[in-house]
Amino acid sequence: MADETTPRGTPEMSWFAWGDPARARELDPGLRDLIAQVLRTRLTARPPVPEEAVEPPPSALSERVRAALAAVTGEAHVRTDDAARLRHAGGKSTPDLLRRRAGGADPAPDAVLYPADHDEVQRLLEVCSAERVAVVPFGGGTSVVGGLTPLRGGFGAVVALDLRRLDRLVSLDTASMTAVLGAGVRGPAAEALLAEHGLMLGHLPQSHEYATIGGYAATRSSGQASSGYGRFEDMVVSLRAATPRGTLEAGGVPASAAGPDLRRLLLGSEGTLGVITEVGVRVRPVPREVRDEAWSFPDFATGVDALRLLAQSDTRPTMARILDESETFVGAALGGSQARPGCQAVLGFEGSGAEVAARAAAVGEVLAGAGGTPLGAEPVAHWRENRFSAPYLRDTLLSAGVLAETLETAASWTDLLPLYSAVAGALTGALEGDEGGALVMCHVSHTYPTGASLYFTVAAAAGADPLARWERAKRAASDAIVAHGGTITHHHAVGTDHRPWMAAEIGPLGVEVLRAVKAALDPEGVLNPGKLIP
Amino acid sequence: MADETTPRGTPEMSWFAWGDPARARELDPGLRDLIAQVLRTRLTARPPVPEEAVEPPPSALSERVRAALAAVTGEAHVRTDDAARLRHAGGKSTPDLLRRRAGGADPAPDAVLYPADHDEVQRLLEVCSAERVAVVPFGGGTSVVGGLTPLRGGFGAVVALDLRRLDRLVSLDTASMTAVLGAGVRGPAAEALLAEHGLMLGHLPQSHEYATIGGYAATRSSGQASSGYGRFEDMVVSLRAATPRGTLEAGGVPASAAGPDLRRLLLGSEGTLGVITEVGVRVRPVPREVRDEAWSFPDFATGVDALRLLAQSDTRPTMARILDESETFVGAALGGSQARPGCQAVLGFEGSGAEVAARAAAVGEVLAGAGGTPLGAEPVAHWRENRFSAPYLRDTLLSAGVLAETLETAASWTDLLPLYSAVAGALTGALEGDEGGALVMCHVSHTYPTGASLYFTVAAAAGADPLARWERAKRAASDAIVAHGGTITHHHAVGTDHRPWMAAEIGPLGVEVLRAVKAALDPEGVLNPGKLIP
Repeated sequence: MADETTPRGTPEMSWFAWGDPARARELDPGLRDLIAQVLRTRLTARPPVPEEAVEPPPSALSERVRAALAAVTGEAHVRTDDAARLRHAGGKSTPDLLRRRAGGADPAPDAVLYPADHDEVQRLLEVCSAERVAVVPFGGGTSVVGGLTPLRGGFGAVVALDLRRLDRLVSLDTASMTAVLGAGVRGPAAEALLAEHGLMLGHLPQSHEYATIGGYAATRSSGQASSGYGRFEDMVVSLRAATPRGTLEAGGVPASAAGPDLRRLLLGSEGTLGVITEVGVRVRPVPREVRDEAWSFPDFATGVDALRLLAQSDTRPTMARILDESETFVGAALGGSQARPGCQAVLGFEGSGAEVAARAAAVGEVLAGAGGTPLGAEPVAHWRENRFSAPYLRDTLLSAGVLAETLETAASWTDLLPLYSAVAGALTGALEGDEGGALVMCHVSHTYPTGASLYFTVAAAAGADPLARWERAKRAASDAIVAHGGTITHHHAVGTDHRPWMAAEIGPLGVEVLRAVKAALDPEGVLNPGKLIP
Repeated sequence: MADETTPRGTPEMSWFAWGDPARARELDPGLRDLIAQVLRTRLTARPPVPEEAVEPPPSALSERVRAALAAVTGEAHVRTDDAARLRHAGGKSTPDLLRRRAGGADPAPDAVLYPADHDEVQRLLEVCSAERVAVVPFGGGTSVVGGLTPLRGGFGAVVALDLRRLDRLVSLDTASMTAVLGAGVRGPAAEALLAEHGLMLGHLPQSHEYATIGGYAATRSSGQASSGYGRFEDMVVSLRAATPRGTLEAGGVPASAAGPDLRRLLLGSEGTLGVITEVGVRVRPVPREVRDEAWSFPDFATGVDALRLLAQSDTRPTMARILDESETFVGAALGGSQARPGCQAVLGFEGSGAEVAARAAAVGEVLAGAGGTPLGAEPVAHWRENRFSAPYLRDTLLSAGVLAETLETAASWTDLLPLYSAVAGALTGALEGDEGGALVMCHVSHTYPTGASLYFTVAAAAGADPLARWERAKRAASDAIVAHGGTITHHHAVGTDHRPWMAAEIGPLGVEVLRAVKAALDPEGVLNPGKLIP
């Protein structure tokens, strides 16, 4: 048996950075000078503290409890070594990375558990609940909202529950076009397992290379092809979860009126109500035809309105995004080309053949009528090549001494542009000053008939205390979101970082409802304490 | 001010029958003889007991509590007269109607409340919770699962909370294509309010002429155009509900990852968790083009498989239904024509113009390839004319001494035909015998990529005790549904009638979750006791 605590297919992530350590890059000196000029700051390289120099505090797990957990999983699947613990010490937000790069006081879980299947997860939760040990369910480790921070929540110890061994295609029904996947199956593995049958899932968030099926479900993820294939929650047919009170199974029929849809309580529960172990999803045939088109618009407002018309029409692209002026300019510069003035939209069409051309033609008519100019497929090819690479660039920037981070929201079409201005203004207001400047970029990457998402990318002078600087900016942006009709998160989830805004989002009675559900499923409160529920 | 306890636009329903009393019809003698022959029974007319002969027990509401309720709504909007109480004595299932037609021991609420707005609903719930009076929220009165039966649930009195005065278009956002409608707006009124702006909702269940927006939400309704426009729950952008603990508002943004979607707890809550007072919905332009097509298939299995191919394709009709052999035959006979052998499918396409013809052509290619023969638009015109009339026919049959009722379920495509055989067999087995025969018909009226609904219509000899006969058949059908992978209800909801099968549907832990949410929102348990939650 291979060491099953090593992930298959995907290299283990660096502990202080995103992704495959082999893909880390240094910042091109020319680009470095340009950034320094734009941000009005001197850039000082900030390399991470080497892993050998970081020593987490000793595991607080008693030998008795460790043995009880190992009795469930086998000795090899309870790890308390530094390497495993450091790699489960949280997610991949910029604050996470800044703390870790500084070799600082980041918490580490007291152990990492690697159960083999649903039943082992179930029994581990029973042990943890009885022994009052906090449990952080851990999928791909890609949270950017503090969802994986190993908080003890008043308990004596905390363990990370790594689901990577739940990595099977459990079942496939090609007539109903559904598949059940283990929660630990990563994005590329899911597509590879389905591709053997000519099928696909089509869920491609930026975290795709590492994120897991269970994580997609637990965080209400949304992928780059959401215009065509929907959000992940729309693909979910059934869910199986382990809880301290037993197994909860929800869904399984195509539609029902048998009371409230309990799948929707597990979707977005972020490990606080149960540990999702299996997800039944809708699958599709691999498209025979893929067609890309970039378009240019004179300004963001015109481009956003064109995407609104598409989202409200009968004929839609599979993927549709529009970049604001700053992001269009920077995107072109990073791709080594000169940007056209205005804003660039990136569209993709996937389907069964002739209908793709017909759909692209109908969409083209709408876009041309709305003020767009076609740019051909080439700019989309560049985007496709780099669609999962932005987190690597962030590490490059952090090492070069630039503060870089993203945040996102969504609102109705009516609220969207005022929200855009308010959030951009809040970020700029918080970051521009004596310590240097900030470059705030934005794109719309998910459109719906009733509204759209906004995704902001910020690069700023790091200043003396980049973490405090970002926390101030993030607070200002979050307050602006709540004040202008946005949701505190469209697809990053809540974790620790958005939790202070949850009461504003769902109201005090909504908070009580979540607490009541948690008390029913997790009476001791061991599941992911300090996350999601205020 | 007009008497606001009289519904606007729609005539008040007969107390013992569906719909407008002026539309009641007697059974054609020729048809009567044919039915008697098919069901191998003598038909004896069974007229209802006249309303004057029915006297509900005196209202159990104390004068003190009545006055407290009237202090909220005004005296005119708390009614305790027999006419109002009888018309709120339950819904319109065949068991409801059989009990009422017999002048029997049907319960009547102790009063009917007609609040003006959300705040009055909120204050009424506070009074009822404090005074421990059970509350049955009442929309169009169209429940066919016992959802409106005025059960006291251990409390001293029960009131019906009729939402008909919440009948406004509260707001409209034409850029975001959303509208907020009062919960008491009926189906046709919703379409009329939106049509003033060139817009529509497009939700057309068989109950459309009476059912309300709030009822659609509370029961997870599905309409005849669900292939194109989705289930009602898919149209809901936001919800506002009054609960004994205060107001709960959910949704409002096009998409979010801020924890579990709390809209989905109210959708399908059937008045047990709160009283939905306002519903934000997605709206659409009124289609410029409507095109109908009927198709014939050699048998049900071939036709169902053709609809599966459509539901899983990129190009779909707005409406798609297929009738089994029996329903095809009876439908033609009722329409005065000779049916083709085999099964008939009814398709509708709605849209913005040229794309409708293109879509119909693409669909036609799929259907022809799957063994279908086009029959033109005429059979669909007949179906459209009668699409809301079946409940009137049921009253005609009940008066003529025929037992008639419907039930429905949904399952994956793989499970669908075995489920169809099992339920049809259970119904026939329970109804065929010494007392006469049964005619079991079925259609698929809602298709999804992963499965479809089954809607059964049963006509049977009434026998000595038609109510007991139906209850036996319903129990056998429900057991067959649970045993063969179906949901206990696809769009009729749970009420009292499906409650015994809820634990099998959602599991014991699912039941505990619903109880926990109810305890948080309705600690005294006054909201619709005895419904939905086991």
